Amino acid sequence: MGSPGALAGSGLLDYKTEKWALLAKKGYQERDLDPQISVITKLKGVSVTQIEELGNRLWDVADFVKPPQGENVFFLVTNFLVTPEQVQDRCPEHPSIPLANCWADEDCPEGETGTHSHGIKTGQCVEFNGTHRTCEIQGWCPVESGTVPMKPPLVQAENFTLFIKNTVTFSKFNFSKSNALNTWDATYFKRCRYDSRYSPYCPVFRIGDLVAAAGGVFEDLALLGGAVGVRVHWDCDLDAGGSDCRPHYSFQLQERSYNFRTATHWWKASGVEARSLLKLYGIRFDILVTGQAGKFGLIPTTITLGTGAAWLGVITFFCDLLLLYVDEEAHFYWRTKYEEAKAPKVTTNPEQTEPASAPPCMAAQES
Amino acid sequence: MGSPGALAGSGLLDYKTEKWALLAKKGYQERDLDPQISVITKLKGVSVTQIEELGNRLWDVADFVKPPQGENVFFLVTNFLVTPEQVQDRCPEHPSIPLANCWADEDCPEGETGTHSHGIKTGQCVEFNGTHRTCEIQGWCPVESGTVPMKPPLVQAENFTLFIKNTVTFSKFNFSKSNALNTWDATYFKRCRYDSRYSPYCPVFRIGDLVAAAGGVFEDLALLGGAVGVRVHWDCDLDAGGSDCRPHYSFQLQERSYNFRTATHWWKASGVEARSLLKLYGIRFDILVTGQAGKFGLIPTTITLGTGAAWLGVITFFCDLLLLYVDEEAHFYWRTKYEEAKAPKVTTNPEQTEPASAPPCMAAQES
Amino acid sequence: MGSPGALAGSGLLDYKTEKWALLAKKGYQERDLDPQISVITKLKGVSVTQIEELGNRLWDVADFVKPPQGENVFFLVTNFLVTPEQVQDRCPEHPSIPLANCWADEDCPEGETGTHSHGIKTGQCVEFNGTHRTCEIQGWCPVESGTVPMKPPLVQAENFTLFIKNTVTFSKFNFSKSNALNTWDATYFKRCRYDSRYSPYCPVFRIGDLVAAAGGVFEDLALLGGAVGVRVHWDCDLDAGGSDCRPHYSFQLQERSYNFRTATHWWKASGVEARSLLKLYGIRFDILVTGQAGKFGLIPTTITLGTGAAWLGVITFFCDLLLLYVDEEAHFYWRTKYEEAKAPKVTTNPEQTEPASAPPCMAAQES
Repeated sequence: MGSPGALAGSGLLDYKTEKWALLAKKGYQERDLDPQISVITKLKGVSVTQIEELGNRLWDVADFVKPPQGENVFFLVTNFLVTPEQVQDRCPEHPSIPLANCWADEDCPEGETGTHSHGIKTGQCVEFNGTHRTCEIQGWCPVESGTVPMKPPLVQAENFTLFIKNTVTFSKFNFSKSNALNTWDATYFKRCRYDSRYSPYCPVFRIGDLVAAAGGVFEDLALLGGAVGVRVHWDCDLDAGGSDCRPHYSFQLQERSYNFRTATHWWKASGVEARSLLKLYGIRFDILVTGQAGKFGLIPTTITLGTGAAWLGVITFFCDLLLLYVDEEAHFYWRTKYEEAKAPKVTTNPEQTEPASAPPCMAAQES
Repeated sequence: MGSPGALAGSGLLDYKTEKWALLAKKGYQERDLDPQISVITKLKGVSVTQIEELGNRLWDVADFVKPPQGENVFFLVTNFLVTPEQVQDRCPEHPSIPLANCWADEDCPEGETGTHSHGIKTGQCVEFNGTHRTCEIQGWCPVESGTVPMKPPLVQAENFTLFIKNTVTFSKFNFSKSNALNTWDATYFKRCRYDSRYSPYCPVFRIGDLVAAAGGVFEDLALLGGAVGVRVHWDCDLDAGGSDCRPHYSFQLQERSYNFRTATHWWKASGVEARSLLKLYGIRFDILVTGQAGKFGLIPTTITLGTGAAWLGVITFFCDLLLLYVDEEAHFYWRTKYEEAKAPKVTTNPEQTEPASAPPCMAAQES
Repeated sequence: MGSPGALAGSGLLDYKTEKWALLAKKGYQERDLDPQISVITKLKGVSVTQIEELGNRLWDVADFVKPPQGENVFFLVTNFLVTPEQVQDRCPEHPSIPLANCWADEDCPEGETGTHSHGIKTGQCVEFNGTHRTCEIQGWCPVESGTVPMKPPLVQAENFTLFIKNTVTFSKFNFSKSNALNTWDATYFKRCRYDSRYSPYCPVFRIGDLVAAAGGVFEDLALLGGAVGVRVHWDCDLDAGGSDCRPHYSFQLQERSYNFRTATHWWKASGVEARSLLKLYGIRFDILVTGQAGKFGLIPTTITLGTGAAWLGVITFFCDLLLLYVDEEAHFYWRTKYEEAKAPKVTTNPEQTEPASAPPCMAAQES
């Protein structure tokens, strides 16, 4: 009696479990979770800037993309602070630095230096362009001034385009696919622009759109920099022949401020080493490719079914418990399910031979 | 009856499943799937080139490896296009650029710029070295000419050697191993060359061989560039003491063309900023290290067996179904397996007492 | 009889298995194993060096961090070997190079070059600064001298600080967290220093402490370079609201020697291209972020229980085998568990009707 109920119960639950494990999670497929990935990026565009230090000039990719290699992580300069001609010398520290301000030389212990300072204190307290008095330091002079251009010079970068060429190879299934090959038109990738609705498979992204899709405001990022993650996800069901195996792009604003310093060194005519220090603000792009592919496999199916199958046993067991202990008829089922195994006692009265005939039935017949 | 058959059946199937899960997939092992990885690369070699722009010169690693850090992704220059002395100026656009060609100034709207253009149009239509008429632009002048050397200058790079020093650490098992330590001879890594057959564990690769192993033709890659993936895979069975824990190398041609632009800036005597623009073609190497280690663990064994064990139950169940519904003797098994559980009815005739003796047996005794 | 024992047995084992699978491995949770990760690093500090080639000078981050972008892999220069003014010329090879030493011109076949040589042999045997005679080569001259400063100039780098800003996003649970946001004090990250005991969540590391924690001696690494891995691990139980979701840092010394060569090129007044070759020794930092998050899910719970449940069935089965074949009372259980199913034979004597009454019980009732 318990059994049919048990099976119904298990069937009900198994159905969900199995369905999930088998279909939703494609439990019948062998999977390749770490494809070999190749990413090549290329930025295009030019921008004009008017900066007094550098004069009216035009910027192209060779100027504003670092590193230029076209790897999966790169940086697009949108704003910068130039300290043009620094040489090793003595000059007043910048007032914004901790412990830089002073009234007298005693405030500037010679040789002292801090994590954030621009050099080693010489022991003298000097004037910083008429306004403050700060400790004199020995280092790259003059020191960087803390003011950042509030109007990002490379704001035209919004219209630059980013081409992401990506190839995934699922070695387990010997299947390889690129996001830029399945086209019939050579110039397609020169013209097309990614659009989540209308052209979701075009791998050319307008920077402005990309930042917006990540939830950022380009002007803000252009001013103080930021980091944007671009995720390319491949989820390939090779049972379907891989025709549906296409990249899906998602965008994420990772950081709302990003900058770093770099310098170009040269030797002046006088033979003195000079450098121009650049504090670069801009957008760092981090292209992450993930992917998985599945293909039918007998073994995984068996395993997955096996896991669900376990429920047949356990549910039957619980249903019997239910019948034996909970049900008000329990005592009856109990009597009929378990019987005491005792040695048959001898009988003489043929009218009372039932007990003798019982033993064949008397035993724990549960399992 | 059904049971033995069922067990035979399940035994048969379980054998496969278990064998696979336990042995093929080492289901009895705990696994560490994400080792900590360290990769250091070093290129060696020199090459001579004759280029009119730069004169007869020798190149070494400091010249042709970018970035020089020796990371897991680097670029080996094999061909390049130099535009030696560019300054910010006005000059004719290159004819290959879209919308560059013109008949009159009207064809060149002032201030217009395109994604692929080299600068901002000044509004005039001028002559491009006698052959074409193109729009004048403001930007880095002269513009890059589209012609690439058809004979890669750095073709000798074929004989360069790449040393890949790789260490994996499986923190879960506190086990660490390098691909370059288990040797008795200090100079071994200066002399040896990787060969899949004869010296599969030497981590020094001749570039030419490496490209060939990836399925590429070095001359082609040297000319237009490309990307080659090198995969180092560690599959370590620590039950065997880790002596078999050795790297396996595989190579893959990821891209058949690869180039990027970079520039070196300087100030001319006249104080004008100049740059020499380089369009670099070459081979990008992408070294990917993957690894896993396994060691016997009781829990995983239990789990794996458990999954397979499920089949004992389900197969028995299906075999019984078979016997009960399909077999032509089914009615017989049915009668004997299931019995109706009904309350004993009172009887007076001792000759007819068998029914009364039945109850002990009357119940659902299936489980 | 076998059953209760079986259940006890299975219960015992299941308890362990289930407990492990459910609790230790959080088998009741859905897991997100590959978070989206963003890492930004920033080094701070200045250092003074006295080097005859470059004179007394101060170094800051713009000088000694390569690449400057603040990515997850970067290099901190601590020692270097400068070859200041190299030009393309002819000069004697360095004696340390294989096949460089010679007695006469015959020892120097013209045009010969080796993997480790600095140039192409011109065919002449010349004197190398009075001490040796080596083959003359054509290449960057003078060649690099093999001597490294034994006292690392940038030993003050020990006091530099490294700020690691890290954000993880578990898209499956729409949960994001940074290692530098949950603070009330803006200047906290300017003041705090990581300490595994007292401030384990401060993401600002003193380089010296970091190297020590990795098991290295800073002086040694500063001299010959090395590689240090920093692992940031997030293990987040989102059922607890993610309040315990905090980064855990671990450090590992990956390499005990590390160096590479790079060069800065320029044009001398005479129009000759020159370069200063730098062989840089230093510490490479490799910041690896891993993470996982879990949240209760019904399906995983079902699956996990299912796997363990399998044991109910299999253990019952084995216990029965035990009772039936091993136990000395086996014959008794055997008789009572299995009964022979044979067709009822016709009977005439009412007193001998028990056999006839038996069939209802006669069958394999095991399952």
